[in-house]
Amino acid sequence: MISSSELSKLTGVNHYQIRKDLAYFGEFGKRGVGYPIQNLINTLKGILGSSKRWEIIMVGVGNLGEALLRYRGYQKRSFNIIGAFDKDSSKVGKRINNIEVYNIQYMKSFIMKKNIRIGIITVPAQAAQKVAEIMVSGGITAILNFAPIVLKCPDFVKVNTIDISIELDRLVYYLSIKTHSDN
Amino acid sequence: MISSSELSKLTGVNHYQIRKDLAYFGEFGKRGVGYPIQNLINTLKGILGSSKRWEIIMVGVGNLGEALLRYRGYQKRSFNIIGAFDKDSSKVGKRINNIEVYNIQYMKSFIMKKNIRIGIITVPAQAAQKVAEIMVSGGITAILNFAPIVLKCPDFVKVNTIDISIELDRLVYYLSIKTHSDN
Repeated sequence: MISSSELSKLTGVNHYQIRKDLAYFGEFGKRGVGYPIQNLINTLKGILGSSKRWEIIMVGVGNLGEALLRYRGYQKRSFNIIGAFDKDSSKVGKRINNIEVYNIQYMKSFIMKKNIRIGIITVPAQAAQKVAEIMVSGGITAILNFAPIVLKCPDFVKVNTIDISIELDRLVYYLSIKTHSDN
Repeated sequence: MISSSELSKLTGVNHYQIRKDLAYFGEFGKRGVGYPIQNLINTLKGILGSSKRWEIIMVGVGNLGEALLRYRGYQKRSFNIIGAFDKDSSKVGKRINNIEVYNIQYMKSFIMKKNIRIGIITVPAQAAQKVAEIMVSGGITAILNFAPIVLKCPDFVKVNTIDISIELDRLVYYLSIKTHSDN
């Protein structure tokens, strides 16, 4: 068994919030005792969709793309990057962390053949919208976008954009209002 | 002049939201006409704190760290990475995108001497808490954290964590609830 206080210590998330969030999905803990660990793991995996393995493609094998291909955190989770794409012929045919880089012209047929639902975009801003459109035309409905633009996609497509400059902007904004209130 | 509809087209953000957000900071647009462009730029820079240049350090020159050092998006904004740190002696002394890599033992004195307020963490999870503590002890109060852990920092420190696996988890969760509702 694990209690919400122990989960709080491990995650840094408030124990009241943990109990509230888990209760949202049903009563699988025991008041004053905690959660049966294996049951908690299985339930969370079910909720998050991570009991299934998800195959992913990535487009854009520049510095950031290559770093993400070398990232070891996916396998431990339920993600598997099964192909990378680039238009640069000097990159096509390379294998990075055992993932092959293909010519971008084959992306759509690859998505359709392998029934891929998730794509990661790491191309420059000016190429990202076109890449997103090809992804969606192949059947992708969830995009993790690292290009610093707002992608225009149909409503049924979920786009999650990580713009590192915007994250830094947020910190700068925090420091600015802090400096004002300190004066 | 630029109208909120034009801003909406450029950014993909709803024009009603744009007017509402800008009005929050005062009346600097003209109803039915729009915003004077140069005035809008200056006002936004002031609000965001980006009229000032911010010097930043980065710790952890692995694949992701190196990709972020090579990233060209900072200079256009108000950020400037002025030093990188690593404990690996094979990396110390290298210059990446004209940014020098220093031994991590000099990080605290560097932060204090240069009066740095913002740090980026790209070390592995098990090293991140210790790095954050050294940053804070030197005077950093805003951290952009790429390590997949919840950092424990004093309340006056703003931590913004980007965990790529969690971003993928969010997409998978979206696909899972979508699959359920499609059935």
